[in-house]
Amino acid sequence: MARDDPLLVPRASSDHSSERNDEEVDALLTGQRLDRDERNRRPGFWREVGLFAWALVATAAVIVLAVVYQHQQNLDHKSGKWAPGEKPTGKRNLIFMVSDGMGPTSLSLTRSFRQFQSGLPIDDVLVLDRHHIGQSRTRSSSSLITDSAAGATAFSCGKKSYNGAISVLPDHSPCGTVLEAAKQAGYMTGLVVTTRMTDATPACFSSHANMRSYEDLIAEHQIGEYPLGRMVDLMIGGGRCHFLPNSTEGSCRGDDKDVVKIAKDKGFSYINDRKSFDGLNLGSSIKLPLLGLVADTDFPYEIDRRHMNDKYPSLEEMARTALKALSDATKDSEQGFFIMIEGSRIDHAGHGNDPAAQVHEVLAYDKAFAAVLEFLENDSTPGILVSTSDHETGGLATARQLRESYPDYKWFPGVLANATYSSEYLGNRLNDYLKAEGKDADKKARREYIRRHMLEDGLGVFDATDEEIDALFVEGKRGDYVFADIVSRRAQIGWATHGHSAADVNIYASSPDDARALIGNHENIEVGSFLADFLDLDLGRVTKQLKDLSTAPEIASADQYSWMGAPLGDDIVVDELDSYHGDFKRMKRDGTIVDMMEKRGVEKRGGSGGCGCGAVH
Amino acid sequence: MARDDPLLVPRASSDHSSERNDEEVDALLTGQRLDRDERNRRPGFWREVGLFAWALVATAAVIVLAVVYQHQQNLDHKSGKWAPGEKPTGKRNLIFMVSDGMGPTSLSLTRSFRQFQSGLPIDDVLVLDRHHIGQSRTRSSSSLITDSAAGATAFSCGKKSYNGAISVLPDHSPCGTVLEAAKQAGYMTGLVVTTRMTDATPACFSSHANMRSYEDLIAEHQIGEYPLGRMVDLMIGGGRCHFLPNSTEGSCRGDDKDVVKIAKDKGFSYINDRKSFDGLNLGSSIKLPLLGLVADTDFPYEIDRRHMNDKYPSLEEMARTALKALSDATKDSEQGFFIMIEGSRIDHAGHGNDPAAQVHEVLAYDKAFAAVLEFLENDSTPGILVSTSDHETGGLATARQLRESYPDYKWFPGVLANATYSSEYLGNRLNDYLKAEGKDADKKARREYIRRHMLEDGLGVFDATDEEIDALFVEGKRGDYVFADIVSRRAQIGWATHGHSAADVNIYASSPDDARALIGNHENIEVGSFLADFLDLDLGRVTKQLKDLSTAPEIASADQYSWMGAPLGDDIVVDELDSYHGDFKRMKRDGTIVDMMEKRGVEKRGGSGGCGCGAVH
Repeated sequence: MARDDPLLVPRASSDHSSERNDEEVDALLTGQRLDRDERNRRPGFWREVGLFAWALVATAAVIVLAVVYQHQQNLDHKSGKWAPGEKPTGKRNLIFMVSDGMGPTSLSLTRSFRQFQSGLPIDDVLVLDRHHIGQSRTRSSSSLITDSAAGATAFSCGKKSYNGAISVLPDHSPCGTVLEAAKQAGYMTGLVVTTRMTDATPACFSSHANMRSYEDLIAEHQIGEYPLGRMVDLMIGGGRCHFLPNSTEGSCRGDDKDVVKIAKDKGFSYINDRKSFDGLNLGSSIKLPLLGLVADTDFPYEIDRRHMNDKYPSLEEMARTALKALSDATKDSEQGFFIMIEGSRIDHAGHGNDPAAQVHEVLAYDKAFAAVLEFLENDSTPGILVSTSDHETGGLATARQLRESYPDYKWFPGVLANATYSSEYLGNRLNDYLKAEGKDADKKARREYIRRHMLEDGLGVFDATDEEIDALFVEGKRGDYVFADIVSRRAQIGWATHGHSAADVNIYASSPDDARALIGNHENIEVGSFLADFLDLDLGRVTKQLKDLSTAPEIASADQYSWMGAPLGDDIVVDELDSYHGDFKRMKRDGTIVDMMEKRGVEKRGGSGGCGCGAVH
Repeated sequence: MARDDPLLVPRASSDHSSERNDEEVDALLTGQRLDRDERNRRPGFWREVGLFAWALVATAAVIVLAVVYQHQQNLDHKSGKWAPGEKPTGKRNLIFMVSDGMGPTSLSLTRSFRQFQSGLPIDDVLVLDRHHIGQSRTRSSSSLITDSAAGATAFSCGKKSYNGAISVLPDHSPCGTVLEAAKQAGYMTGLVVTTRMTDATPACFSSHANMRSYEDLIAEHQIGEYPLGRMVDLMIGGGRCHFLPNSTEGSCRGDDKDVVKIAKDKGFSYINDRKSFDGLNLGSSIKLPLLGLVADTDFPYEIDRRHMNDKYPSLEEMARTALKALSDATKDSEQGFFIMIEGSRIDHAGHGNDPAAQVHEVLAYDKAFAAVLEFLENDSTPGILVSTSDHETGGLATARQLRESYPDYKWFPGVLANATYSSEYLGNRLNDYLKAEGKDADKKARREYIRRHMLEDGLGVFDATDEEIDALFVEGKRGDYVFADIVSRRAQIGWATHGHSAADVNIYASSPDDARALIGNHENIEVGSFLADFLDLDLGRVTKQLKDLSTAPEIASADQYSWMGAPLGDDIVVDELDSYHGDFKRMKRDGTIVDMMEKRGVEKRGGSGGCGCGAVH
């Protein structure tokens, strides 16, 4: 081998190697060149210098480029999980949040309310605000204004369908969902909601029904009683009544099927109240699969739940619990998990036109959103959060003209801050009072009671007129609507309907780079496609499986999809613009309207659903 | 110097250098090592090999990294104008569009209307929809609900101010605008609007006034009669009446100043009708500076203008004309241009609660937006387009509950398609008719006339009730509002107010990468800061200049800002939440309300503005 000379040090002649002579020292001190050794150098020296310089420059360039590139990557994608625009590979989690019925105006409403109530500056915004990436267009196959069923089918299947459809397409066939496909691909799956577990949004991920009103049937699907078997590993929410046999108290089923018992027999652990929820230790003591039904039907609104914290957990607590459980359960798996978390009752506050209830629902959702972000930051498995709404509810406006004269440009968040209960809660208290007192009680005493115990104590309203109070006693008027209007008018908050509207809704994500394909304005089915793409799922395969399982030779073709409940009928308009008649009426192709109340059960299977509980949202 | 041996070719001993012997050829063919020369090699050989390998690998890495980086850059920024996230350098154009009063719901409304009217599929969306990048929060310093003046000051100065402020801050001092700073930095500047040139949005870029109602004063600033001199190179819009002396017909000035004449004397070319606009040949025959005042006050709504195409150009035509002229005028300059293009009357359709007028206004804006994109694609100077609204108007909802019973989920775009005129147009025709016929005309004949000539011919409404028609004759009721309500109810479109609302509004851009800093949800002042940053402007310098020019030793301190019109008074609340009383009333710090009608002129300068024309928007 060649001698091990230090590179680029001019080799002094060997006899001088250990000492530096005066000439050399002078040269070092004065900077003068020392030519003496020039002629002694071997001929390859300058070649080595050149090569070394080349290598050095190239290496420096590599370093600079790598740093710049890395910096660019960081700029593009702070989390560094995946290169922006690239499809992720490897183990990953997907958290999908749905703010049911939250339109863009709800954000402005809630943000200003929060800033007002807490004395915050204008740049102290909601967590959601800092994660806005786009908007979603919401129309369904049958109407410019969707319901939550068609809205959630767009997310779960990535397909447009008709209002009322629970992951069923306009051709009356089932479509495979993101949750089902994720489960089959090895992911763990979960659902967390503040409404009935059998309500449209969670139902669309975990069941298939021709009409959203078939909630008894949906409960059965959710615990695995349908062609695919059990697909959901974790459920926490309300709607217990659809899982209990109608022979027991607290049931709203049409039959005496004990769905909880069937679930337990299948291995589900079951919790049904705050105490057993607390026993889960925020997720560290969960045995999956879990069926958690912590409310009879819906949870109370957040504005009311705050006073009943010992009875119901918050959305944030449920979300944290579910994430911890699913993360632990997938610790050693090849795949992560998929979960859908819904702020279900933002929508209900819109239906009730109750702005005070609404801001607290949105704030609760914002807290859950923040909790998910915190989870993503700390969990060892990379994951993303995507959040959107299915539609706007109420036609909410942060402005309301009260008189004919040109309006002042203002609204009053302080009015919402004064309210400590929802109009729903007070409406129920009013009904209790009227039942106890009778409608013929002394008018003046009645007014006084309402004024003191409901308007002042519940809403912080001290200036209600007699006319406003008397409206609460008008036959056929809903008390909750009257209470909500008393608040809305004072806050100068406007509503156009107790139903839904066609406004585009916002899309949020853990970061823009986490969901690049969703930046900007998109059709809601693109959100569904994004979810499937992110987990690399083949929804078509699940759809085919559902169809194949429904067309086994032993099944008569008329019964093919009987497991999805009574069919709508081929003559019902579902594939073009009809209108949605509150789920109870439908247009036939000949233009006549048909009453769908007759079709609420699963006739072929014996059950007949339908307790009338739970409004259609 | 060392010998010039080819790098890395093992040096054969010099006596063999010109020929290859059989042994060598064999070795090459068989791949066997040739040891023979090993001992002849000089000791540095392997060092050279090592160095060369290092250099080669590093160089290859440089190439690979450079290619990857370049590819990434291309992925990120297809236009290749600037690296994403980087500040542009070099000559560039900035086009800022304002969709005055267009909230998020206007998009859903217009998109579905267009799809319905033209039989388009759901993925055939507006051009705007394909360029959505974020949302803007709109509150002003004095109210949760902004007006267009505070809204435009946020864009022009990047600062929050009070409702009514024309680029004046809550401390009553002027703030330098993007347009002024651009002009001073060598850019050409332009304004295109469909309302009065002196209305709030264009005014905020080109003038400074304590109240938006000082439109006479604003006109003078716009042609250069204020401390900075002429800052605008091109204006095309309406509002001629504020430029004409009140001694001439068509004037709405409070004085007999001939602002058009002053402008001409300063070198402005002047056009005032469709014919002279056509003479500009879509921009190829323009002599700048140009004062183009093609309408007395506002342009007609697009829904009406279509029938008067020979009298008024469209927003698209005006935009194309301005872009061509500014592009040509800056062809050989070091700097490009800044232009603000406003779809001014989307707002007015909101104020009028007229959904038929609104969809045509939004479509006209969409066309102008598309024309700007086309310009950017073809122009040789790189540039970007940013578009947003100052606020939402009307509390528009694409849903309306007409009865107590739970509403159907639908609205009817066909009703808007049937209307061929705006409610404003029909309101004016109604007034003409009533003036001609007298209010005491035969009730039945009157109904018949209205039904035939206005409701059927103008709105396509064939089922109006007598009550609906009679509402048109109620003293104190505005006919245009009644017409608009007849349409809105049939279309099931809801409105909450004739004023503005606090909803967040959408931000659009030529591409997300063109305005990365505006992706997501932002305070409106961030839009203003973005505009200044993009052109590398120092607004603070212009502000200082405006202040310095106002505090010259010869100016008494009381007169310091008299060029901005009569002051509001220090006791008027402008820096914290007040409410906006239609511009005509203000809250003092002691809580009393003061009538601002007295302050409409420029008292110190002799003029007194105020013609009452032009509602406050």
